[in-house]
Amino acid sequence: MRGRGDRLAELVAERELDLLLVTHLVNVRYLTGFGGTNGACLCGPDTRLFLTDFRYSERAAGEVDEWEVVTIREDWLGGIAERLQESTGFEDDHLSVRAHGKLEGAVGEGVDLKAAGGMVEGLRETKDEQEVDAIARAARLADEVYEETLAAGLAGRTEREVARAAVAAIRERDAEPSFPPIVAAGPNGALPHAEPGDRTIEEGDLVVFDMGAELDGYCSDCTRTFAAGEPSGDTREVYELVRRAQAAALDAIGAGEEGKEVDAVARRLIEAAGHGEHFGHGLGHGVGLEVHEAPRLSSRSEDTLRAAEVVTVEPGVYVPGSYGVRIEDLVVITEEGHRNLSGLPKDLQVVG
Amino acid sequence: MRGRGDRLAELVAERELDLLLVTHLVNVRYLTGFGGTNGACLCGPDTRLFLTDFRYSERAAGEVDEWEVVTIREDWLGGIAERLQESTGFEDDHLSVRAHGKLEGAVGEGVDLKAAGGMVEGLRETKDEQEVDAIARAARLADEVYEETLAAGLAGRTEREVARAAVAAIRERDAEPSFPPIVAAGPNGALPHAEPGDRTIEEGDLVVFDMGAELDGYCSDCTRTFAAGEPSGDTREVYELVRRAQAAALDAIGAGEEGKEVDAVARRLIEAAGHGEHFGHGLGHGVGLEVHEAPRLSSRSEDTLRAAEVVTVEPGVYVPGSYGVRIEDLVVITEEGHRNLSGLPKDLQVVG
Repeated sequence: MRGRGDRLAELVAERELDLLLVTHLVNVRYLTGFGGTNGACLCGPDTRLFLTDFRYSERAAGEVDEWEVVTIREDWLGGIAERLQESTGFEDDHLSVRAHGKLEGAVGEGVDLKAAGGMVEGLRETKDEQEVDAIARAARLADEVYEETLAAGLAGRTEREVARAAVAAIRERDAEPSFPPIVAAGPNGALPHAEPGDRTIEEGDLVVFDMGAELDGYCSDCTRTFAAGEPSGDTREVYELVRRAQAAALDAIGAGEEGKEVDAVARRLIEAAGHGEHFGHGLGHGVGLEVHEAPRLSSRSEDTLRAAEVVTVEPGVYVPGSYGVRIEDLVVITEEGHRNLSGLPKDLQVVG
Repeated sequence: MRGRGDRLAELVAERELDLLLVTHLVNVRYLTGFGGTNGACLCGPDTRLFLTDFRYSERAAGEVDEWEVVTIREDWLGGIAERLQESTGFEDDHLSVRAHGKLEGAVGEGVDLKAAGGMVEGLRETKDEQEVDAIARAARLADEVYEETLAAGLAGRTEREVARAAVAAIRERDAEPSFPPIVAAGPNGALPHAEPGDRTIEEGDLVVFDMGAELDGYCSDCTRTFAAGEPSGDTREVYELVRRAQAAALDAIGAGEEGKEVDAVARRLIEAAGHGEHFGHGLGHGVGLEVHEAPRLSSRSEDTLRAAEVVTVEPGVYVPGSYGVRIEDLVVITEEGHRNLSGLPKDLQVVG
């Protein structure tokens, strides 16, 4: 957590605020290391306060340093309000209308609450070494889980059985899934966010298998599309198209590139092959304490990529009623390009 | 879900609103049965709209009836805004300041957004038969897990080992923990919300074990305090005090009683024994789709209990530095009193 409060305080000063009130728990955890369920931060040039209630005083004393730990005994919002300064930013994208109204009612005259959401999320975009290491370990763990899960074969098992086996294997490794795994066979692969169901995977099905682990708070995210036995029709051709599109996007990615342009590199190849309308989502997204965070790689993105951001690169083609293909790697952006955290092969794996 | 939209529409009319916009997902699930991660409801005398995005259209078609399913293609808040009517309530305790501001900017002239949080939570307080059945099944499952976990003994295991065994046993039964179990031995038992740690449970420790299951969306919640071998000092005496306080509160509970008064029945007994300052939390809380919901049983509660509410009754005595005792049952309130959903014995169990 070292230095994160200092970097935030600089941003607070740049925004001409006296203080920022941080209430979103993921952001509080990022700043302080606190892992409990009630806490807030006040950060300004001369202020590093971590606020919690009596249930978490002892835990905070162990977890939080560089921030003064304050226990609020009874009136949570009142206890926050009395510590605010003239110009205080708050996270408007997370504070509820009701809590904001109560806070407005509790602050003294001369305190002006200003909408200032997204500041900590901005810091979280670039990862330090310790964070990249945590994400890389989560990604390696997920790679192992893929291998273990596939060793039992695909054809003849239901989507749900495969997904449950993956979750169990993640937990055996003392981690949690970073989201409920997607195992989508045959035509189900064409449904975005399909939930694993009772469909028995058939010989020849393509299977979209999207899974990640959460380890020490940090997430991984990976997708591979497998063939359950020899694939049929044009599926191999479409698989190779997606693979080429992904390779081109990985070649294009790097510090200074536009998220929009990297998306376009993959999209143009898919469009040229006549599948433009079958790639209905963005190319990728940031991953860290949350499995979806900034920056974005999509046709609407306004983000310029920076070194030490961790993002997914995941083009897909979804042919309604037939099948889907998605190939997703997790990469750290570097000055030179990227470092890939996903270790699984990308040629089409035919699984028994 | 049958009839829930109708009951909500009556409340909406009573509040002289044309519509209520429901955005809190637990409330959306309660009203419609939808289990995905993006959905909202619009409910009024002649309106039953369920809104979601393209990822969940198919799922909603299968899960939601009695509500017209509308898929919003691109602009989520804009798609909601264009369907609002003159006087529209919103859940101010869940909608963020930012989302509210965007919604205000997107609605047409003549639409007035009014803070109206808590209406669905009010409906959720009393449970129908199907809900009580789901909670009762979750409670029975947790009872089995207690028995299985204790069969391996307590002394010599760490708190964390016991907690992990309980979580594994819940998952083996196709359920999830409704919250991370608390296993707090000896002096740790005196810390509210202690997290299971590396402390090895010693012969003679009292062990506070608080655990619940979530099954089909509904939660259970139970606590027992066990003795790891023959208890020492005055622990048995304090255990019996808490047990008497709980029995008295259970005798007092029933439809028409005040939450504050039922709390006082237990609290007076504990105070009379000189442990008033060691009972630092309320007597109980409602349980349902969430493990903490209305009503409350506490000295500050303004709730009058009603038949078909499901609440915990959980007095405790926490002696700092020494030990804690808490005994918690989950009960359905009836006209005559209550029906207990917790099946475990309450005389002090001495576990090897």
